[in-house]
Amino acid sequence: MLTVRPAASSRAATAAAPSRTVVEDVRPRVDDGRYAAKAVVGDPVQVEADAFADGHDLLRCELQWRPAGSRSWKRRLMAPLGNDRWRAIFVPTELGRYQFQVRAQIDPLATWLHDLRARVDAGQDVAVELVVGADLMNAAAEQVRGAARQHLTELADRVRRPGFDPAELFTAAATALLAGLPSPEPSTTSDPYEVYADRPRARFSSWYELFPRSTATRLGRHGTFRDVVRRLDYVARLGFDVLYLPPIHPIGTTNRKGRNGAVTADPTDVGSPWAIGGTAGGHTAVHPDLGTLADFDAVVAAAGKRGIEVALDLAYQCSPDHPWVREHPQWFKHRPDGSIRYAENPPKRYEDVYPLDFDTADWRALWDALREVVEFWIDHGVRIFRVDNPHTKAFAFWEWLIPTIQAEHPDVLFLAEAFTRPKVMYRLAKIGFTQSYTYFTWRTAKWELEQYLTELTNRPVADFFRPNFWPNTPDILTEQLQHGGAATFRVRALLAATLTANYGVYGPVFELGEHRPRHAGSEEYLDGEKYEVRRFKLDAADSLAPLLERLNRIRRDHAALQHDRTLTFHRIDNDQLIAYSKSVPAGVEDIGTADGAPVLVVVNLDPAYQQSGWVELDLAALGVDGERGYVVHDLLNGGCYRWEGSRNFVMLDPEVTPGHVFQVQPASDGAGA
Amino acid sequence: MLTVRPAASSRAATAAAPSRTVVEDVRPRVDDGRYAAKAVVGDPVQVEADAFADGHDLLRCELQWRPAGSRSWKRRLMAPLGNDRWRAIFVPTELGRYQFQVRAQIDPLATWLHDLRARVDAGQDVAVELVVGADLMNAAAEQVRGAARQHLTELADRVRRPGFDPAELFTAAATALLAGLPSPEPSTTSDPYEVYADRPRARFSSWYELFPRSTATRLGRHGTFRDVVRRLDYVARLGFDVLYLPPIHPIGTTNRKGRNGAVTADPTDVGSPWAIGGTAGGHTAVHPDLGTLADFDAVVAAAGKRGIEVALDLAYQCSPDHPWVREHPQWFKHRPDGSIRYAENPPKRYEDVYPLDFDTADWRALWDALREVVEFWIDHGVRIFRVDNPHTKAFAFWEWLIPTIQAEHPDVLFLAEAFTRPKVMYRLAKIGFTQSYTYFTWRTAKWELEQYLTELTNRPVADFFRPNFWPNTPDILTEQLQHGGAATFRVRALLAATLTANYGVYGPVFELGEHRPRHAGSEEYLDGEKYEVRRFKLDAADSLAPLLERLNRIRRDHAALQHDRTLTFHRIDNDQLIAYSKSVPAGVEDIGTADGAPVLVVVNLDPAYQQSGWVELDLAALGVDGERGYVVHDLLNGGCYRWEGSRNFVMLDPEVTPGHVFQVQPASDGAGA
Repeated sequence: MLTVRPAASSRAATAAAPSRTVVEDVRPRVDDGRYAAKAVVGDPVQVEADAFADGHDLLRCELQWRPAGSRSWKRRLMAPLGNDRWRAIFVPTELGRYQFQVRAQIDPLATWLHDLRARVDAGQDVAVELVVGADLMNAAAEQVRGAARQHLTELADRVRRPGFDPAELFTAAATALLAGLPSPEPSTTSDPYEVYADRPRARFSSWYELFPRSTATRLGRHGTFRDVVRRLDYVARLGFDVLYLPPIHPIGTTNRKGRNGAVTADPTDVGSPWAIGGTAGGHTAVHPDLGTLADFDAVVAAAGKRGIEVALDLAYQCSPDHPWVREHPQWFKHRPDGSIRYAENPPKRYEDVYPLDFDTADWRALWDALREVVEFWIDHGVRIFRVDNPHTKAFAFWEWLIPTIQAEHPDVLFLAEAFTRPKVMYRLAKIGFTQSYTYFTWRTAKWELEQYLTELTNRPVADFFRPNFWPNTPDILTEQLQHGGAATFRVRALLAATLTANYGVYGPVFELGEHRPRHAGSEEYLDGEKYEVRRFKLDAADSLAPLLERLNRIRRDHAALQHDRTLTFHRIDNDQLIAYSKSVPAGVEDIGTADGAPVLVVVNLDPAYQQSGWVELDLAALGVDGERGYVVHDLLNGGCYRWEGSRNFVMLDPEVTPGHVFQVQPASDGAGA
Repeated sequence: MLTVRPAASSRAATAAAPSRTVVEDVRPRVDDGRYAAKAVVGDPVQVEADAFADGHDLLRCELQWRPAGSRSWKRRLMAPLGNDRWRAIFVPTELGRYQFQVRAQIDPLATWLHDLRARVDAGQDVAVELVVGADLMNAAAEQVRGAARQHLTELADRVRRPGFDPAELFTAAATALLAGLPSPEPSTTSDPYEVYADRPRARFSSWYELFPRSTATRLGRHGTFRDVVRRLDYVARLGFDVLYLPPIHPIGTTNRKGRNGAVTADPTDVGSPWAIGGTAGGHTAVHPDLGTLADFDAVVAAAGKRGIEVALDLAYQCSPDHPWVREHPQWFKHRPDGSIRYAENPPKRYEDVYPLDFDTADWRALWDALREVVEFWIDHGVRIFRVDNPHTKAFAFWEWLIPTIQAEHPDVLFLAEAFTRPKVMYRLAKIGFTQSYTYFTWRTAKWELEQYLTELTNRPVADFFRPNFWPNTPDILTEQLQHGGAATFRVRALLAATLTANYGVYGPVFELGEHRPRHAGSEEYLDGEKYEVRRFKLDAADSLAPLLERLNRIRRDHAALQHDRTLTFHRIDNDQLIAYSKSVPAGVEDIGTADGAPVLVVVNLDPAYQQSGWVELDLAALGVDGERGYVVHDLLNGGCYRWEGSRNFVMLDPEVTPGHVFQVQPASDGAGA
């Protein structure tokens, strides 16, 4: 009794022996295929797999892909990389889920041709082998149409003729004719895996966060959506394309926090926008002092005219005054004394916030209500959500919510604001978050930046996690920013804007260099906007706005900075200098009006002293020839240099500039300075 | 409409919200769980997984395991390793397949106790929290029996009393009582994964290969099974426990190869034993010149009395005179001229061998016949098979054959003789081969030994691949052995015997130092036994037999050398010296009469010159305290030294010894020299 059920073989002919080929270790493959890898419409998805057979036979290896739901596969031959690894790319052309798989089978014609050459070279009699090959050609001809069929049949006829010279088979024309033909051999197909194709802004976005209530131009006034509209030209001039607003909803008064997070508030205190909900409504209402829903719609429209998308904060928690507390008390956790449990991380207490109980027996109604919140704002034109503390809500909820939303609105993006343990952050990305906050905020030394970015921009992490680098947030004023002076702000802006294609700043405090903490050892801003209305002098002489404007322009104009996976670090013999480059990945078909040359960045991490060193460039990563020379244009500071070889000297003075951002181009006659 | 189907959640209560816990990256897990990892009866299987939940709640994480087919799981709590990683071991007690899985859930009592301590330390009022805890204790008491239930109930009662001092909950007794209790929270269980539990010889074996026909004591005589019986005392004295015999079957005469592989044979030439099959029969017959099946049975019995198992060669190929060629011509590939295709790797030809066509339309009958070959020899007491070139036979065949055999005979072991590409070798191990030949034969430099062994003895490879190190085989006389002299043979024996718990030598040519190649640049032995009958002077004065005897004794007496996963390299400041240690893995319950101390090996890789250097020992890996001192006994050369600290000086003269093999023990008063 024989029962043979190999893992994944073709079942074409039950009588035939199982396929001799093996397909293993397909990439991208997230958690053994449980989750979709991340992709972008128009960007190549690089698929790799191990494929081999017993013995020495050569393989024909094919990538197959299709939008999920489509019934027919598109197909492309994969190329061998050596060590039984194969690669091919496919390019998603629509938003949403795609499936792909790898199919391998023996290629009898390629094997035959390879062996024939060895026999001929050894002077062996190949008369019988030529008949074998002619038979294979005739069989292959049955599987193709048109000219190829005719050419194969003609070649087979010639091969059968006495006196045929096998050398004809080793010409380029014959080799091309005989390569990659359909094979009659049994095949093995991998499991199907998935990618989710986002729109390009998932990969490349420049975020600016501001508190709408701090946008009034008159001192003491509560800013409004109309003030935000007036602020849009500033944001647009700086070159940001996502305007992220902290919660815009009514704020509770019960247990409201005072300025600087004081446990009791003065009557004039405005409270934290994250204490969502009051008499004016909850997550689908707007704060009356900001204006009306129509005013909000006007912000979205005015931003859109400037190429800016409005991102809303999705903070799933309630102030004690939120309508849900009254209407759905079962959505909250209660203590034995009947009180609702407020947010805590013992011994820390957040008395102005009630967490939702994702485990409530009434969870289906709660989850539906939370979905409706997203849909409400989608109806108001929002397509990007920055999700507050997703790691304190059930993973299963996000794993349901995000695909549910994207099934109807595949263009919606979610940014996970989870500053927590690494595996938790990665899990959120796997289950659907489009982008993620990162540890960049605290990574300052060269070695840790290199180590962290290497992890983020390579497989497996790069397949599911899209980093979004922020030098600051309303909750995080790092010790480095507190003490490093304006030069540190410049360094952090340069790093964030060039290390990852997605980045953001919390302004205007960032460009204005606010750096005073609430108290020594705290990462909270002194007099932070979380608890009060602020007014900013945007035209301050020492504002970093011109630097941000220039960085954003460079990012827009140079496609290399719009991708993360090509990030390459270059050795430099000074630990205060970091050098890295990016290029447009092979297979990207459309970069619009942007320039496609590689970009090389050298940053002086030391805000206090001039640093110099020799950089040892990986010229292959830059696509230039050291002997012919190449030209580097400094996009940040101006200047143009002709370099030769891989070693070059760099000197950077933090008083002058945080670094170089070089466009790298092969030298042409007469170029360079 | 809500449809929630999280990947792997408990379905206990369909109305309840999905589990908040996540279980990821379970190890061992071979190819996403498609294949069983390797295990050994009595050895601990170290299971690890990532497990975490949203928020800050603490988890209860449980390992569950059972023999495949059993209906009930055994359970054990897993311990947190940090970074959301958990670990526990289980020990298979029977041969065959085991299943295991990881189950995680929120531990509300542990979370509550942790938070309570933080609240108490901060001086907060915990009156209501104590009620919460008492309720949790009462709920947990419902789930346990006996004393624990009573203690929990009593503790809950006390906690509810006014004036209860929470400090009582932080005592060791209370903490122990409240730890690891059954949790009422929804759970997440990983997919089930498998290990295959072999008998201990799968992990620890010492192989000796000899050609039976070369065992006659009289010159010119063809050795017999009776001669092999007479040779057993020699093999036993050397301490080997597996005697591997190349094919013992009738040898074909058609296209028989002559001495040194000559294309034409003299009438007196005996041919290659791998050209299996003649008028006297095929794979289930024995060569008439060796004796009868009864004689073979006597070899198995006599070997068994000496603690030696006979391993047979499973070479699935046929000489042109094999009965199957006549009886089942459809099992072979035919050429258009009607001839059967002999074995080739163009331009190389093996005219004396016909490969079997695993793809034949009659594959079911062929595969069944091949299975019957194995079963035939099992009936004759063979439980170990060395499989010849498994990589030139269909993977699907092995994937069917090995489990089919082991379902009836779970103690049968298969050694894969596949000297081929890395992924092919690993695949064979994944689909069932117990042990595997390796690249050790050609790895000679320190860096490549360290790199290769690090790959082999760590996850993921160590989960499915068991290396068996051979310094030589009948096909491989390495260039190093050809030119390095006796000192090189000693070094290779020492490395093979101590780097991996499974090793073997092809003798007597190994211990007699045969080193002449067929011609310059060849790895074939001159006058090799593959093509002729040889007679050996076993009592040669310069035989390495005493070294092998001593190495095998050390391996038997020191359990550390019987395991591979604890291999640790120690830094030594001389590239000609390599230092490594092994210890008995934690959780091994029975090492018989062997010693359990760690063993430290230092080898001089240079066969020509004395080498010295400072070794920087990883004392934690050796389980000793550098300040208290430790004692190293040289098991190979004698001598005993008291060392302190981690840095020690070593000097090795290749004329005297290839290295040190130190038993490492903590110093006791008065110990050491």
